[in-house]
Amino acid sequence: MYALKQFIESRRFETAITVLIIVNAITLGLETSQRAVEAAGPLLLAMDRFILGVFVVELLAKLAIYRVHFFRDPWRIFDLAVVGIALVPATGNLSVLRALRILRVLRLVSVVPSLKRVVGGLVAALPGMGSIMLLLSLVYYVFSVMATKLFGAAFPDWFGTIGASAYSLFQIMTLESWSMGIVRPVMEVFPWAWLFFIPFIVCTTFTVLNLFIGIIVSAMQAEHDAEATAERSALQHEQEAILAEIKALREEVRALRGAKQP
Amino acid sequence: MYALKQFIESRRFETAITVLIIVNAITLGLETSQRAVEAAGPLLLAMDRFILGVFVVELLAKLAIYRVHFFRDPWRIFDLAVVGIALVPATGNLSVLRALRILRVLRLVSVVPSLKRVVGGLVAALPGMGSIMLLLSLVYYVFSVMATKLFGAAFPDWFGTIGASAYSLFQIMTLESWSMGIVRPVMEVFPWAWLFFIPFIVCTTFTVLNLFIGIIVSAMQAEHDAEATAERSALQHEQEAILAEIKALREEVRALRGAKQP
Amino acid sequence: MYALKQFIESRRFETAITVLIIVNAITLGLETSQRAVEAAGPLLLAMDRFILGVFVVELLAKLAIYRVHFFRDPWRIFDLAVVGIALVPATGNLSVLRALRILRVLRLVSVVPSLKRVVGGLVAALPGMGSIMLLLSLVYYVFSVMATKLFGAAFPDWFGTIGASAYSLFQIMTLESWSMGIVRPVMEVFPWAWLFFIPFIVCTTFTVLNLFIGIIVSAMQAEHDAEATAERSALQHEQEAILAEIKALREEVRALRGAKQP
Amino acid sequence: MYALKQFIESRRFETAITVLIIVNAITLGLETSQRAVEAAGPLLLAMDRFILGVFVVELLAKLAIYRVHFFRDPWRIFDLAVVGIALVPATGNLSVLRALRILRVLRLVSVVPSLKRVVGGLVAALPGMGSIMLLLSLVYYVFSVMATKLFGAAFPDWFGTIGASAYSLFQIMTLESWSMGIVRPVMEVFPWAWLFFIPFIVCTTFTVLNLFIGIIVSAMQAEHDAEATAERSALQHEQEAILAEIKALREEVRALRGAKQP
Repeated sequence: MYALKQFIESRRFETAITVLIIVNAITLGLETSQRAVEAAGPLLLAMDRFILGVFVVELLAKLAIYRVHFFRDPWRIFDLAVVGIALVPATGNLSVLRALRILRVLRLVSVVPSLKRVVGGLVAALPGMGSIMLLLSLVYYVFSVMATKLFGAAFPDWFGTIGASAYSLFQIMTLESWSMGIVRPVMEVFPWAWLFFIPFIVCTTFTVLNLFIGIIVSAMQAEHDAEATAERSALQHEQEAILAEIKALREEVRALRGAKQP
Repeated sequence: MYALKQFIESRRFETAITVLIIVNAITLGLETSQRAVEAAGPLLLAMDRFILGVFVVELLAKLAIYRVHFFRDPWRIFDLAVVGIALVPATGNLSVLRALRILRVLRLVSVVPSLKRVVGGLVAALPGMGSIMLLLSLVYYVFSVMATKLFGAAFPDWFGTIGASAYSLFQIMTLESWSMGIVRPVMEVFPWAWLFFIPFIVCTTFTVLNLFIGIIVSAMQAEHDAEATAERSALQHEQEAILAEIKALREEVRALRGAKQP
Repeated sequence: MYALKQFIESRRFETAITVLIIVNAITLGLETSQRAVEAAGPLLLAMDRFILGVFVVELLAKLAIYRVHFFRDPWRIFDLAVVGIALVPATGNLSVLRALRILRVLRLVSVVPSLKRVVGGLVAALPGMGSIMLLLSLVYYVFSVMATKLFGAAFPDWFGTIGASAYSLFQIMTLESWSMGIVRPVMEVFPWAWLFFIPFIVCTTFTVLNLFIGIIVSAMQAEHDAEATAERSALQHEQEAILAEIKALREEVRALRGAKQP
Repeated sequence: MYALKQFIESRRFETAITVLIIVNAITLGLETSQRAVEAAGPLLLAMDRFILGVFVVELLAKLAIYRVHFFRDPWRIFDLAVVGIALVPATGNLSVLRALRILRVLRLVSVVPSLKRVVGGLVAALPGMGSIMLLLSLVYYVFSVMATKLFGAAFPDWFGTIGASAYSLFQIMTLESWSMGIVRPVMEVFPWAWLFFIPFIVCTTFTVLNLFIGIIVSAMQAEHDAEATAERSALQHEQEAILAEIKALREEVRALRGAKQP
């Protein structure tokens, strides 16, 4: 068991898995090409099956080694999920799952340290966005309900249901065809519609921008804090040296007095 | 009266109001669904009326307690406005007000502290934008009048009045279909029209970006100031300790001289 | 002459000019409305003439007072230009100048201090953008010539001349309809056209973003420098006090030695 | 040989080359104008040939002088490439190379110091983007394969091959006509398609924004580091003066004791 653990945590094993993921990425990519499938379809399928088999064995081994601890590392849960998708029989309504097999390639992120760090950084930025995301959802919900009530009857494709309204408002927030595509036609029926859409655009754009400003500021703060601490400690170190020196001097002066007075 | 105040300011009461707001958000959302209205229309309406009643009673109680002070907190005025909308009879031309009932859900912002803080932050960024917003309005007005005079006769839909021009220019500033949708057709009649629109795009984009740069810089400055002050005070504290030590030392040396000289 | 100068530089006179500019803004705006012209056309025209007259007299007075120094302040040259436009007879090909009269309203910027400061800040950011603007122009020129040679024959409307290409590339840089409107049609004739347009988009977007990053960084640097200098000088001030204290102490010790030795 | 080197590295020679590049930029620009070619076609061609000849001679001279060292400076390799393009016979399939002659004008970047610095700065920002670019490529590949499998059969123009999907996804990432142009039509066939596209937009936009945030932060960090170091060293310098002063004082006190004790 210990030997297995050492083998699985070895650099060599990790490299082998990395290579297999990249090969798998290529075979899954080739499967989308008609010509490649005609030329080497069975080979591609066999390789995919083989690599999937290796991944399953790897995960089972890890499960056997780490047991409950396996689920402590979110990356391993991610690995389990993307490999697990391929094991669900992709028939009938689930045929969409066949397309999800390529998600397996995202295992590369958990295997390549620099990618892991970048994704970790992106994910670490999320909690700080919590409140503002909640606010944005609330604004979205309120505007979606309003849009459905106001324009739903006249424009069922765009604002027929809350879901349709939310999608249309997302499109409007990204500024895609918001005026020529949506708001100008709506304004032909409801001339005051700009009173609804322009505040929406201004509010959500301003909020999203503040979201990113918050991320910038906190990212810089983190870097700056680390540096400022280092800087301050250097200065304080020196100041403490000065203080110690003065105290020693005072000691000597006191000794001088002591030697004289008696 | 005091008991009422304590009850209204209690945590329990706030939680109850929060729950009612969320329930109201759901019922108002369900009202947009044909199926939900068919299945439980009267229930939804009854719940909405009941919750509105609670809100009205709550606000009346708060009015009774805080009296004039009630209007000192802008959040309470906001609450009053969004609840008040629902009390206006929504008939005839005012039927639009029925859609505004959902604004009541925004009361969530004033009840959830983290949302209150985020919105407070966004609003706090506004005064710093005052001058640049004024400048932007001025530029908008000037360009709208010019666009109306130059292109109004040929393109009445887009530039027929100052209002239409301002809307079209806002669309152009967001870069939505500005060229294919507006400027290329205009250039077919006025080949030099790009001399009007490209400077407008460059100026307003540059101004809006400076607006956001200003917000970023002042947000960082605020954070940095607080930190720098803390850092400096730590260093100054130490320096003052050094100075005090030296002064004490000087006192002793003086005592030494005093003891010797006479 | 001195009395005239005092009068023109008085706060009251400035306020009067500000009011006149705002009134002029309103009359020029009303001139675009058919109904307002029908109702009060001659009055609007008379007011416009009167205000223009006041501005001309004001500028002549300033010219008389400041003489050559008049042209030292770029704001005064700006005032001269926007007032001068209205004096050119707007007939024939120059009828466009009639629309430029509204530029006079921009005098508000030079009269309201907060607007003057904002515009000054925007203009101050320009020189730092010099090199990157030059680079962007060079890239534009190179890509315009290439686009004209490659696609000019097949798409004369978009890439027929260098000017048309530069305009189309500006549109593509703003990402407006770049794919559906321009590149997909071009790719139907030249399937490799994305090799030209995608690098162009990536390069120019990256360059423009670096432009703004540069502005952000230098704006923050300026603020930070000022503050850091203040902070450092406070610390140095204290340090110099310490040094002076120590030197005085040394003097005393020396005096002690001098008093003892002989 | 040494005289040649001095001549080539002289300021005068550089100015001459700069002038030739600018003249070449103009002639190559004029070649796109039908009228200019009719009026002075042979002259333009002759000038182009002459300038190309000068560039070739210049590069040969530099090759002769610097030999292997020639290839150490990436700018010289760039010069070699853009001049070399013009020497390949532009016939048949290579007729496109004729349009690439204008790239020669980019030599201006390596000749004008301020442009060289700006481009150097842009290029210096690239390595820090390595990991995030790799991540973005991976996400692109995964989503392209998925889009091809999911929507390739129904929308061959947009998602028929991995290449077509990658192009369409790039368009969607730039938010150009993403909804009206692509996603709404796709949703008519696959109503759940927004589950694929909206996460793609959110993820890639968020990643690209973090890319730029990273550049901003590191640019500011670099500036700030330099400044903080200067600031700290000034303070430390002073502190060291204080320390030296105290040590000297201690020396004197010790001398005082030494003079007294014996």
